[in-house]
Amino acid sequence: MSKRTFGLAVAQVGGIQPEETRVEVVARLISMMRVAHQRGAELVVFPELTLTTFFPRYWTESLQASDHYFEREMPSGETAPLFAAARELGVGFYLGYAELTPEGRRFNTSILVDGQGRITGKYRKIHLPGHADNRSNLTHQHLEKRYFEVGDLGFGVFESQGIKIGMALCNDRRWPEVYRALSLQGADLVVLGYNTPLDVPGWSEEPHAKMSTHLLSLQAGAYQNSVWVAAAGKSGTEDGVYMIGGSAIAAPSGEIVAKTIGDEDEVVVTHIDLGMAEMYRESVFDFAAHRRPENYSIIVDRVGRGEPVPVPGFDREA
Amino acid sequence: MSKRTFGLAVAQVGGIQPEETRVEVVARLISMMRVAHQRGAELVVFPELTLTTFFPRYWTESLQASDHYFEREMPSGETAPLFAAARELGVGFYLGYAELTPEGRRFNTSILVDGQGRITGKYRKIHLPGHADNRSNLTHQHLEKRYFEVGDLGFGVFESQGIKIGMALCNDRRWPEVYRALSLQGADLVVLGYNTPLDVPGWSEEPHAKMSTHLLSLQAGAYQNSVWVAAAGKSGTEDGVYMIGGSAIAAPSGEIVAKTIGDEDEVVVTHIDLGMAEMYRESVFDFAAHRRPENYSIIVDRVGRGEPVPVPGFDREA
Repeated sequence: MSKRTFGLAVAQVGGIQPEETRVEVVARLISMMRVAHQRGAELVVFPELTLTTFFPRYWTESLQASDHYFEREMPSGETAPLFAAARELGVGFYLGYAELTPEGRRFNTSILVDGQGRITGKYRKIHLPGHADNRSNLTHQHLEKRYFEVGDLGFGVFESQGIKIGMALCNDRRWPEVYRALSLQGADLVVLGYNTPLDVPGWSEEPHAKMSTHLLSLQAGAYQNSVWVAAAGKSGTEDGVYMIGGSAIAAPSGEIVAKTIGDEDEVVVTHIDLGMAEMYRESVFDFAAHRRPENYSIIVDRVGRGEPVPVPGFDREA
Repeated sequence: MSKRTFGLAVAQVGGIQPEETRVEVVARLISMMRVAHQRGAELVVFPELTLTTFFPRYWTESLQASDHYFEREMPSGETAPLFAAARELGVGFYLGYAELTPEGRRFNTSILVDGQGRITGKYRKIHLPGHADNRSNLTHQHLEKRYFEVGDLGFGVFESQGIKIGMALCNDRRWPEVYRALSLQGADLVVLGYNTPLDVPGWSEEPHAKMSTHLLSLQAGAYQNSVWVAAAGKSGTEDGVYMIGGSAIAAPSGEIVAKTIGDEDEVVVTHIDLGMAEMYRESVFDFAAHRRPENYSIIVDRVGRGEPVPVPGFDREA
């Protein structure tokens, strides 16, 4: 097992209010990137939809009327300073934002940028939570299915800064298929941003489990796939809605090795050993030796829950 | 959300030495079944390979020479008292054992028995850990791949005692595909038995993570699939090898709600609410609304890790 140390940071972003400008937000991000660099980070993970408030909470009759939440180019004039800081410091980053393509398509997107400021990876969110219809009785909605198309780039792994990095976004982290698709492509590290409101009306997860299910999702993804996982969220109150923090890094052992404790802008840096995954990949999770995909077909053949499949050769009594 | 309370027990079995007889073991199981019944259990989960010591630690030149570890019929004269106790008490059970079929095939098997003593479900282990070759330098081996064929019944869900119950065994619990295959068939509860040596030479999992990865696997399976999970292990020292305990029940919230604390025979009973899963199934884990199997094909198309798949429409710079 070869030791490969890598400086990894998650940069949690405190709530962003509707009136805050991209220039202000980008200045906060650069400030955190400098702190991360001082502490030895080579890559900084920022949240999902980092540049604006989490606007899918607002109903809109016309999507075009919400275009100001979207980026038409990356980098743009307003985001270029972040790329310049990456080049200056030699620090890569992951950034989530709302993407409006030249064809007028809208995606919940993230990019990976290396220490030379080059875009080395891109992902468009596939697991869009929430709903598309107007639930005006709710104090705040969760309209990702209205604002965004399902991502069309698949689950990608990108070589960047000498590491194979898999990309995901927010709700993706709760679906084991995501980490599996990325680890089957050899990912060493999975990076993701998120926005998780403490309370989503109509989404009846137990409130007390909100932080533990978030961390459990990261830990399970890391352990079951022998990868490192780094997740950065927005936190604090955004326009009256509280978002959980808990930005964290999970190891291939399933352990949380770094985690924010507050709900404002907060940088956590840890030096991970990418080589640690090897002992898992070569024994308990030697996929080639142990996986049995001939028994997994129902995972792609069915979308929702259905009836039990008859068990061949087994006649039930009674 | 309708409340559906069900009395569920896991019965951890202390180490079984090579010289112990089935009659002695079955008496221990019946004793635990009576305790579980007194505490309100309707179903008792016993471990994997419950009736003998964990014999896959021993190399054997001839499989036939090890036939005394296997059951040729179920129930047999020696195991019939367990079925009689189930009928007497109206308590169902899950039991793991080594199966030798009339055709001479060997499986690591478990059965589900209802409160009338009828066999209502059967599973033959698919994820066989360890190796098939003789590693005589090891103080104890892990020869499941030598002793057993890969199970040929798939991952089955069985209606028993009014519940849809999915079945698995030991190492299966570390593979997210297993819980997913069972939850896609509508399982309310996943039951499994295990034998987990603290130290498996050649299997370089970090020793300090042995209990946490076991519990993490149960918690992740329960949460990611909106099912209850009940796992019973053998524990304590078997022929000089220590097996971890930690028999436990995990809720759809990902929380451990019951767990043994020792490493001997120990019964834990809890009254679960099967209806609790509904709030998860109808929101965050509404599979039909949110899953995207068109992006999961690599899970069945690949066995082991491979190269990244090109990302369509994205040209990397540089």
